[in-house]
Amino acid sequence: PKSANSTTKPLPKPPADHRILGAQQELFTTSKYSPGSAIFLPNGTKIFNRLTNYLRSQYEHFGFQEVITPTIYKKSLWEKSGHWENYAEDMYSVTGRGAMGKKVDRQVGEDEEYGLKPMNCPGHCLIFASKKRSYKDLPIRFADFSPLHRNELTGALSGLTRGRRFHQDDGHIFCRPSQIREEISKSLQFVRQTYSVFGLGPYRLVLSTRPSVSYIGTIEEWDNAEAALKESLDASGQAWTLNEGDGAFYGPKIDIILKDSDGKEHQTATIQLDFQLPKRFELEYQAPAPELEQKGLSTENVDLSIEGPVTPVLIHRAVLGSVERIMALLIERYDGWWPFWLNPQQVIIVTLNDREEVVAWAKAIKRDLLMARDDTPVPEAIRNFGGVTGLSIDIDDSAQPLKKKLYDAKRKRYGVVIVVGNKDVQEKKMSVDFTGLSSGNYDFTRNVDLLKAAKILSRQD
Amino acid sequence: PKSANSTTKPLPKPPADHRILGAQQELFTTSKYSPGSAIFLPNGTKIFNRLTNYLRSQYEHFGFQEVITPTIYKKSLWEKSGHWENYAEDMYSVTGRGAMGKKVDRQVGEDEEYGLKPMNCPGHCLIFASKKRSYKDLPIRFADFSPLHRNELTGALSGLTRGRRFHQDDGHIFCRPSQIREEISKSLQFVRQTYSVFGLGPYRLVLSTRPSVSYIGTIEEWDNAEAALKESLDASGQAWTLNEGDGAFYGPKIDIILKDSDGKEHQTATIQLDFQLPKRFELEYQAPAPELEQKGLSTENVDLSIEGPVTPVLIHRAVLGSVERIMALLIERYDGWWPFWLNPQQVIIVTLNDREEVVAWAKAIKRDLLMARDDTPVPEAIRNFGGVTGLSIDIDDSAQPLKKKLYDAKRKRYGVVIVVGNKDVQEKKMSVDFTGLSSGNYDFTRNVDLLKAAKILSRQD
Ligand SMILES: [Zn+2]
Ligand SMILES: [Zn+2]
Repeated sequence: PKSANSTTKPLPKPPADHRILGAQQELFTTSKYSPGSAIFLPNGTKIFNRLTNYLRSQYEHFGFQEVITPTIYKKSLWEKSGHWENYAEDMYSVTGRGAMGKKVDRQVGEDEEYGLKPMNCPGHCLIFASKKRSYKDLPIRFADFSPLHRNELTGALSGLTRGRRFHQDDGHIFCRPSQIREEISKSLQFVRQTYSVFGLGPYRLVLSTRPSVSYIGTIEEWDNAEAALKESLDASGQAWTLNEGDGAFYGPKIDIILKDSDGKEHQTATIQLDFQLPKRFELEYQAPAPELEQKGLSTENVDLSIEGPVTPVLIHRAVLGSVERIMALLIERYDGWWPFWLNPQQVIIVTLNDREEVVAWAKAIKRDLLMARDDTPVPEAIRNFGGVTGLSIDIDDSAQPLKKKLYDAKRKRYGVVIVVGNKDVQEKKMSVDFTGLSSGNYDFTRNVDLLKAAKILSRQD
Repeated sequence: PKSANSTTKPLPKPPADHRILGAQQELFTTSKYSPGSAIFLPNGTKIFNRLTNYLRSQYEHFGFQEVITPTIYKKSLWEKSGHWENYAEDMYSVTGRGAMGKKVDRQVGEDEEYGLKPMNCPGHCLIFASKKRSYKDLPIRFADFSPLHRNELTGALSGLTRGRRFHQDDGHIFCRPSQIREEISKSLQFVRQTYSVFGLGPYRLVLSTRPSVSYIGTIEEWDNAEAALKESLDASGQAWTLNEGDGAFYGPKIDIILKDSDGKEHQTATIQLDFQLPKRFELEYQAPAPELEQKGLSTENVDLSIEGPVTPVLIHRAVLGSVERIMALLIERYDGWWPFWLNPQQVIIVTLNDREEVVAWAKAIKRDLLMARDDTPVPEAIRNFGGVTGLSIDIDDSAQPLKKKLYDAKRKRYGVVIVVGNKDVQEKKMSVDFTGLSSGNYDFTRNVDLLKAAKILSRQD
């Protein structure tokens, strides 16, 4: 064993553990009644919603269309997709409890077995198939934040990193074979931009290619797809490695791999090509020169007057991957010191005392910052901005001494502390302390400008 | 039979049907693989998200804290809550498919039966019970948008108004007996404000009181609660009617009832007192003079030094009720002519032609309106506002004649039509047509002011 150093050194701080921080900051909890399903407490729910809303804001830009799809589908759908057979161990079966023959007026078919969805892909294939599609409509990109269920063994469960219920920022791109390259490039850009905004990384990019045996599709299809993936990876300017032969039987894929605070690696984002599912669901779109189109080849100098059916390429992609797992990584990354935009405790208004008019003034400030008004129609600005100002604002109007209240506010790591006292009531003022904002990562003046423009902060002028 | 009128009159327009409009506007669809579970298409999802985001923006104001709770809970929880026995016909049972004894290494307990949740209340009781609570913490108000499942008979299913899977803007208030009146008043105010913003109503308010037989709790508790409900109803200034003896066995309630376009009545919002569930879950908070506190009586002139456990009152409340059902009513109410803030097709940018620089300029305008930038970090303003500008923006850069493109934009009922041509590219300009906005219900200039303040529309100056 190493000899102990005789000078007293502070012990190295242990790496952050998202389960401990999650309990300290009251982000999430669990229950013996639903092991593996995180229960997000109010603070955790705020972060969860900010992450998914950030993705939503980018969807409009990256051309994704969000959809909301069922939680349970009949067994026959999962047989069609192949999950009922190949994914049996991980799936939950669902049956109506009233279908046990107790009631004479029970209708036929009520007792068919359902599967609780472990993935969104079959549902998105149903939406694609619900309408006639032309090559002009492609790419079509669906996004979905549905909760998913996979029956992990009890021993495999671990906080937010591996659960039985989780949410993906799931997306499926239905595109023409000739569009694979651009879609992969855009997906890599989406990942790069998001991880930069979140302060996550560096991450590893890994390409997995065609297994030597048991794969579906032709070698030509695989070669084209792998070439497209490689070109997109090269064009990204980021380093990547090859896992030769490690692709799924239905297509090659790119995985994004991040380290947590312990150095343990987690797969987060993924981009997977799939030649199988579109065939199982008999998906098609109409295009000129369908044979060339199917191979992704140029249709110059070809008779374009005759259109025919072509099978679209399906790309499964997730930027965050599991929202729960990314939250775990972010909790450890920030070690409890959230940047303002993710901080569940953004603003606190502290009153000098609990006098009625001071508390009323604190409440009026909160109402204005939220752009809400009592019992009058809500200002258009809120509705038009999707109904969210995004600010979380608490009030501490307890009778405790100001010093104690300010100490608590700092301990709870509020980003902005507003103090109001007796004089502020008359003068319609407040004191604002921005020192809790990590410098550099938040331009609060911009928000204040916006709020002033909306005549929200006019009382402060 | 009536004699036919000899002058030719236009046939009266049939009342709007949300199922027909829903298909025309591509809001939602259904699948034989999941009967009774609406599949929200991109347009319907936008409206769904705007409705729930509007509620969220008000939660911060009305003191609700959103939580995210599991989809499945073990049978033992539903036995505790009473649902397993009393709600059996409507519930789905869930079991792991890998738990059929196929694998030797399967862990004990993996095959316990779960129930797919029909309501959120038991989950919220678990959260309340997860921490020691004081009278100073109350009221505690949890909100939840989880999908819920109830096994309705096939014959009872009807579009969005009655399904097997639906979402509630569900909320549970845990309060002191003395706080019932104020909480009911605030809930009624929340309903009033929301329905006014949505343009829904007039609605009927109905109070249902203690059944003459089989109820739980004391007559004193019921009398106090009913008096609180009546006072809140009177204070609301709205007319209400009494359904004597029609309350649930666990408490009195107020239902809000709206008519659809056919004149058929639908229950939407609800406010229900519950004396039972807090007892079943053994919920408690600490308060001085617990016996007086439990009765909601004043604790003046009493020894307050000794605290003891008190059972909180539980109020189940939903403002929209089923989000799906409210969407059906809104679809019929607006008959396809959405106000701008709910319109899934808000802005379209139409190009004069498909020249590369014109299309690029159209895309740049879209990017600026969305506050998005390619491959540069996203501006703080987006993140700080929850990542949403709330605008839906499409581009029509097809090669069709401008006249045809403008005709299509009007037919699809876009609120704002932006046209860009060759000259606009050089001059960094655009033409904006606001005539699609229903006058009076949208103050677009306010949005433009906000965007200008954020230096988003500076190119137009
Ligand atoms: Zn997928
Ligand atoms: Zn409830």
